[in-house]
Parts: sequence; structure tokens; C-alpha cells
Amino acid sequence: MRLATVRTESGTRAVRLEGDRLVDLGRPDLGVLLAEADWERTAATTGMRTYPVADADFAPLVPNPSKVLCVGHNYTNHIQEMGRDLPAFPTLFPKFADTLIGANDPLVKPPETERLDWEVELALVVGRQVRRASTAEAAAAIAGFTVMNDISVRDWQFRTIEWTQGKIWDSSTPVGPYLVTPDELPGGVRPQVNVRTVVDGIVMQDDDTATLLFDPVALVEYVSTVITLRPGDLIATGTPAGVGQARDPQVFLTPGSTVTAAIEGIGACTNVVIGSSCGAAVRPRGRR
Amino acid sequence: MRLATVRTESGTRAVRLEGDRLVDLGRPDLGVLLAEADWERTAATTGMRTYPVADADFAPLVPNPSKVLCVGHNYTNHIQEMGRDLPAFPTLFPKFADTLIGANDPLVKPPETERLDWEVELALVVGRQVRRASTAEAAAAIAGFTVMNDISVRDWQFRTIEWTQGKIWDSSTPVGPYLVTPDELPGGVRPQVNVRTVVDGIVMQDDDTATLLFDPVALVEYVSTVITLRPGDLIATGTPAGVGQARDPQVFLTPGSTVTAAIEGIGACTNVVIGSSCGAAVRPRGRR
Repeated sequence: MRLATVRTESGTRAVRLEGDRLVDLGRPDLGVLLAEADWERTAATTGMRTYPVADADFAPLVPNPSKVLCVGHNYTNHIQEMGRDLPAFPTLFPKFADTLIGANDPLVKPPETERLDWEVELALVVGRQVRRASTAEAAAAIAGFTVMNDISVRDWQFRTIEWTQGKIWDSSTPVGPYLVTPDELPGGVRPQVNVRTVVDGIVMQDDDTATLLFDPVALVEYVSTVITLRPGDLIATGTPAGVGQARDPQVFLTPGSTVTAAIEGIGACTNVVIGSSCGAAVRPRGRR
Repeated sequence: MRLATVRTESGTRAVRLEGDRLVDLGRPDLGVLLAEADWERTAATTGMRTYPVADADFAPLVPNPSKVLCVGHNYTNHIQEMGRDLPAFPTLFPKFADTLIGANDPLVKPPETERLDWEVELALVVGRQVRRASTAEAAAAIAGFTVMNDISVRDWQFRTIEWTQGKIWDSSTPVGPYLVTPDELPGGVRPQVNVRTVVDGIVMQDDDTATLLFDPVALVEYVSTVITLRPGDLIATGTPAGVGQARDPQVFLTPGSTVTAAIEGIGACTNVVIGSSCGAAVRPRGRR
């Protein structure tokens, strides 16, 4: 099952993909749907009006998650090739709802940076409230997976010892287009799929989620030890080698660039970078 | 003007302090009130039923802020006594709504730590939506100030290079009891007031907000460069010397401890630490 949140003339709507149509699920967004106890049955069986996929305008997959946590240093191959020891614990950092954009929204380069970078990430979407989840509870709490491009403002990220201020820029982080349920993926709740970033036709990142040190189920266990996870919350599982900051020479996103973060069997976020002087052309959003 | 969010038999309510009574402002919490364009007039003039202060059960001052950002390394005296250079930029880290508790709620020590620590902080509450605020816009966006005890789980904070996982523990961080508007404070939007932490009768932290390197207005300017600030959002302005982790010998909070974080002219959060085996005695909360 593939679910999304799309913008329509009457606001955002939760939808299910059926062939070349999106079926309206009668809820304003996927976060509202996931908060219902029987969301899986509703998502599978409800069908109201439909929209053509070709015209879809994707909102952030979950527009208002109560929390978004991201993981650093999680691809084993990348850690080992850098000569680092494997960490004992996941490194966590935040994003906020205001940081998210839709899968194909324009990505506005802030005038305050010349070091705008990409990070393709497999992200899990929480489908059930959990705290101190056991392995089985953590697996059952994963509603599905999506793509996040963890856009990073590198100069601000490294201004201080805490990455937060480089990771939470407003309207910077595409997430979507679809939540794909685990039954559709090789490896299920521990997907084994290719992740890749392509910038203007050049492959920049290319790895496999099978090499994750902390897999999605382990991350739900870990994070839920610290804080309650609620339906619609997002955990991004880290990025492999190949970010612009670590290349020689370094490469960053500039207006006119097109960046695609793609995950096999799940989907892709493709975003055109625009200068902030083009900001007026960007969709005005309220709380979203 | 002193405003709060209290729990009543019919759910949380936004209130104004008048003498020994709390006046119901007709809104479910302070966050809802602050989101209204004319919140100051409503807060000053609305009066419905009242409650006695003596019976007040304070909820987190704003139960569902869209974001909470905290600042590290901000008290000049403390930075200089440690022999460090003054930083060029504020260090930011997050909390989430699920991390907050009321000003007098019990503080449950998680069984996963023996290093539960205090940090008294002057926190500002945003009263107006701003992005890339000028100095004047930043000053005008500050609705008022409150007290936060930035409770920190030190062992988890230092498990990795990112502090986040030691700062966001569920139901760990008292905030309140009152929002105090700047007109009531010496220094206005740049308050000059004493901040203090007392643990079981012993003064552990004692400093003055006049020594803040980045003052509240500067912090609103800085954070709003990165991300939209919305009504009800919280920024905690950092803590002075005297945390338990930095003492010799180190001291941490244990069940039975009482910790008071107090700010002159604003108020105090007083919380009794309880063991997690007492968890059943803690008020069950939904989304809050």
C-alpha cells in the first residue's frame, strides 16, 4: 500500500495510490489518518473521490509530526571506509515540522549559506504510539517507509559543536512522496534497498540500507526509550558516503541544480534549487 | 501581566493571575491564546470564571509548542571562569512538546540513568510569528518570560557528539508556572534578574541574566534566521555555572530530592524527584 498527502483546491488530503489515480481517504492528511487506531483498514478500504497521479502536488508526507529525529553515522561501509570504529549508540539530531517540504517542492537556497548539501535517507513513519518499545512492539509500530533528503546547511551546522542549527532550516527538507508499507519491501521492517542521490545527472550517493548499523526497528526501540513516539513521527536513518561537504573538491547545491534522492521500491524526492530572490514564486503556506 | 495554563476538571485552561485568583480567559491553553492576533487585549480584559491560585495545577506553560530551542554556553561569567573564549554564535539544541511538564509536576527519574541533572534557564515565549526578524521585530515578538529547568540526562547527552538524546527525555522538563510580560521586568525584553537553583535547600546555581552573552532579542533574531518562530514557541537562554555534572564531587538528582529553579520576578519551578517505580502515581496524560 502506498499512501501520501497531496495538496488540492480544498486543502491537503490523505490519499492511497491505485494505478494512475490517488484515492481520497476522507482525512486531511496522513498524520490525521495514522492517529486512528484502525488506520490500516481505513487506508486499504476507503475510497471517495480520486485525483490523477500526473497532477499530484505532494505535501510533506506528514505535515505536522510531533517530532522528527535523524540519525548520524549509520552506514557501516561509510564508517569503516573512514577508518572509524563502529559507534555503540546512534547519534540523534532533530528537525521540526516547519523544516519539511513536499517531495517535489522547490528548494529555496537561503541567502545566508553557500554550503547547501544533500543527504538521502530512508525514513520510517511511526504508526502506533510507543514508549520503551520491545523489538516486537517496535516492529509493529512502523507504519512504513519514505524518502527524506536531509538537506544540510553545512556552515551553520559546524558553527558550534551542535549540528541542530544546520539541520532545521525552514522549508528545507523534502519528505515523501509516498509512505510504502513494509509488506511491499524486501526485508520488510528492515528494508534491503538501494539508496541514491543524483545531482544534475551525476550519481553522488549510492549504497544499500542492508548495511545500516542501527536498523529501523532498533532505532524505534532506542528513540522510544527516550521519548514517546506518536503516529506520524518520523525517524530518518542516516546517510551513506558521498555528501557534497566530504567530496574533493567539495560540491554544494546552487540555484538551478536539480537534486534527486531516490530509494529503490519506495520513491524519489526531486527538487529544483532556486535562489531566495525567487521566493515570491514559492507557494505561500500557513501552518501548512 | 501573568498568564498560565492550568489543569481543571474540564481540561486545561488559559488563565491570568489576579491577586489570589486565576481568571479563566476562555481558551484551552496559552498556546491557543497567543496564536490570536489580539491576544494581549484578550488576556488583559477577558474574565470568566475564576479559580483559587492555592489549588492551581499548572500544565506546561505552552502544552504544544511547534518547537523548543535551547542555548548552550551563554553566561559570560561561566564561560570566562572556565577559561574559554566567548563563542561567536549561540549553540542550539532542541526539546519537543512531549519533553515538557508543569511547573510543580513530579519529575520521574528514568531507570536508564543515574545522572539526572538540573539547569535553571530564563525562557522566552514567542507571541508573534517571525522569520528573519530585525532587532525591533524580535523585541516585539517576545510575549514574555518564564522559567525552564532544562533537566538533562548526562550519560545519554554524552553518549555521542550530539546532546539531543540527553535533552529530550519524555516528561522531564518543567516550564512555568507563569508567562510574565516584559513590562513587569527590570530590563524589559532583556531582563536583568537573578537566576538560581536550589536542591534540597542547597543553592547550586546563582547568577544574573544581565551577563547573558546572547540576550533574548538577539536569540529571536538568530533563531528566526534559521526557522519560522510561531506563537507559543519557546527559547531557553542557557544556564549558569553550578550544574551537578560540573561539581566536585558530582551531584545528581535522586528520588526524594526536591529541585527548585527560580528566577527573580518571574517565578519558580519546584519538582520532587520520584523513582520510576512510582510511575503509576503520575498523572496519566494524553497528547497533554
